[in-house]
Amino acid sequence: MSVGSLLILPGDGIGPEVMAEVRRIIDWYGEKRGLTFDVSEDLVGGSAYDKHGVPLADETMAKAQEVDAVLLGAVGGPKYDDLDFSVKPERGLLRLRKEMDLFANLRPAQCFDALADFSSLKKDVIAGLDIMIVRELTSGIYFGEPRGIFTENNERVGVNTQRYTESEIDRVARSAFELAMKRGKKLCSMEKANVMESGILWREVVTEVAKDYPEVELSHMYADAGGMQLARWPKQFDVIVTDNLFGDLLSDVAAMLTGSLGMLPSASLGLPMANGRPKALYEPVHGSAPDIAGQGKANPIACILSFAMALRYSFDEGAEADRLEAAIETVLAQGKRTADLLGEEGVTPVSTTEMGDAILDAL
Amino acid sequence: MSVGSLLILPGDGIGPEVMAEVRRIIDWYGEKRGLTFDVSEDLVGGSAYDKHGVPLADETMAKAQEVDAVLLGAVGGPKYDDLDFSVKPERGLLRLRKEMDLFANLRPAQCFDALADFSSLKKDVIAGLDIMIVRELTSGIYFGEPRGIFTENNERVGVNTQRYTESEIDRVARSAFELAMKRGKKLCSMEKANVMESGILWREVVTEVAKDYPEVELSHMYADAGGMQLARWPKQFDVIVTDNLFGDLLSDVAAMLTGSLGMLPSASLGLPMANGRPKALYEPVHGSAPDIAGQGKANPIACILSFAMALRYSFDEGAEADRLEAAIETVLAQGKRTADLLGEEGVTPVSTTEMGDAILDAL
Ligand SMILES: CC(C)[C@H](C(=O)O)[C@@H](O)C(=O)O
Ligand SMILES: CC(C)[C@H](C(=O)O)[C@@H](O)C(=O)O
Repeated sequence: MSVGSLLILPGDGIGPEVMAEVRRIIDWYGEKRGLTFDVSEDLVGGSAYDKHGVPLADETMAKAQEVDAVLLGAVGGPKYDDLDFSVKPERGLLRLRKEMDLFANLRPAQCFDALADFSSLKKDVIAGLDIMIVRELTSGIYFGEPRGIFTENNERVGVNTQRYTESEIDRVARSAFELAMKRGKKLCSMEKANVMESGILWREVVTEVAKDYPEVELSHMYADAGGMQLARWPKQFDVIVTDNLFGDLLSDVAAMLTGSLGMLPSASLGLPMANGRPKALYEPVHGSAPDIAGQGKANPIACILSFAMALRYSFDEGAEADRLEAAIETVLAQGKRTADLLGEEGVTPVSTTEMGDAILDAL
Repeated sequence: MSVGSLLILPGDGIGPEVMAEVRRIIDWYGEKRGLTFDVSEDLVGGSAYDKHGVPLADETMAKAQEVDAVLLGAVGGPKYDDLDFSVKPERGLLRLRKEMDLFANLRPAQCFDALADFSSLKKDVIAGLDIMIVRELTSGIYFGEPRGIFTENNERVGVNTQRYTESEIDRVARSAFELAMKRGKKLCSMEKANVMESGILWREVVTEVAKDYPEVELSHMYADAGGMQLARWPKQFDVIVTDNLFGDLLSDVAAMLTGSLGMLPSASLGLPMANGRPKALYEPVHGSAPDIAGQGKANPIACILSFAMALRYSFDEGAEADRLEAAIETVLAQGKRTADLLGEEGVTPVSTTEMGDAILDAL
């Protein structure tokens, strides 16, 4: 019997390569653990544009709305740099996020023990780091109107609008508090309330929601100070909640600090569907890395860990997610490393597929 | 004869303490180098609010418009957290920036040799780092209209507007290219052109300005990737140009990465005045640090280096600025350290005033 449905969108650049390894893992779960998924595959980003002239076809969007989980590789590449804004690869991803209403983007910034030396940060600053950034994903300056390039007084003006309603802030804050309850019970909210009114509202609503979570220790930080503190001593944080744009930047900085960028998955969650499962999309934090695409150099682990997150959050298979994560730890402990993680002594370089092989062996 | 006029605004928190040391340096220049300044002092931020009920009095604003350079300490503190947005300490600083039209904020992120061990980054990643971030300072989401907290459909909505005109982008881009010409001739422009139309316009205008600077190697990066690259290998950059909000975050992250936060000055420059000097405000990158205010723990170097920048950019006294910077290098080489820079072996802890004494001795 199928555990549920999965739409796979490999996307562009290294997306297809890393997703190929995920498919082998999915097959393994079907054969060895009796967990079969109803898998379909489709196009997103530049590859969708090449075929359909849009970065996400309406049929693909409709499919995404129906499945239990979407698994996405990566989108974008220089080939599409000069496309009109409305059909850029990124618009496909943004359409998915918006129409599926995936308001809570969970981005773990975690330092894998075996990779602590690989960070640009000193080992004691980074070893053992395990924080979770909850980024609002369906509103803010990414989607606010008015937006565009207009002509005023004989010159062009670029306009975007940051807009947050109370209920948008409330729901993502709740997701963050819920996560904090399951973790270290510390939540730090970041905005620029000293400069932006939307930040003032953000702070007020988060403070209000905190009343429902008396066990969670809430703090507030200006986003610039937050970036500083992430760079100084990231272990001071447990869960961070922030808006779409600050979350984009801060989670990328945090991910890079861990030294484990090719290792970091993310989950984007929305409201529960009729079957009780949340609308969900899983994707690696890294991008499409067009410079190394097609060369067998890409690290498939972030994408595989995104599938592990799907097991945990969409299919309630936490134990199986643990199993997959443990297999990855084993492979790392064996010293197997894709090209992005070379540099230490005594490690064995492996290709994308060999990394997949090793993980399957470890499973 | 006076070299020019200087308005000193110590501000809040550690502002007055660090500024007291700057005043001693200024006096030294008058006595020993024949460089006398027409110095006046006034209030800004919380201290102005306490006296006038506004974070910047109109008379202070008028004075700032007339002097050759403004030197500011820091603004803000928990005491003022609950003030109405319109009279928060930060509004005083923002009013100065806006009304003086200080569109180019120069923020060096530099790692002082003597402090390379102090960074959270590995020494090879950070030693010798010397980059310059040029942040647009008078427009973007900091000032765009409409802004505020409104009620719509029975709930509150927080709104801010990012707005950039071509000429606003053009002029800050030119400042950045000019700086790049005097440095390593490399400029990286950062925005989110993949998501924001204002970023598209930014990229277009910067690309257009580049035609006037054929010797400068221009690159573009999405701001999130830029944050990542700063954390990974900051030495890849020479000059970075970016908008007000991204500049706020990225320059703070970069400053923290250097390990030299208490050491970093900044200059905010506007259009030339009648005497040919640019409108100018100088301030340390660090904040008002209310937790250590009044304890003699603050590091006065960032503020003193801000005065050195004033010597260089406002008063054309580059050689005297070099002298002051060299004195600071000497004191650091002697192992003298304020509380923010303790932790290494073999250094001598000094107070704010003792650091001032040491710099005067070295001069
Ligand atoms: C690809 C891009 C649209 C996207 C974003 O800006 O959200 C990416 O940077 C991310 O963080 O997922
Ligand atoms: C104090 C605050 C208004 C200011 C800003 O956001 O610009 C500060 O963070 C800075 O970077 O100078």
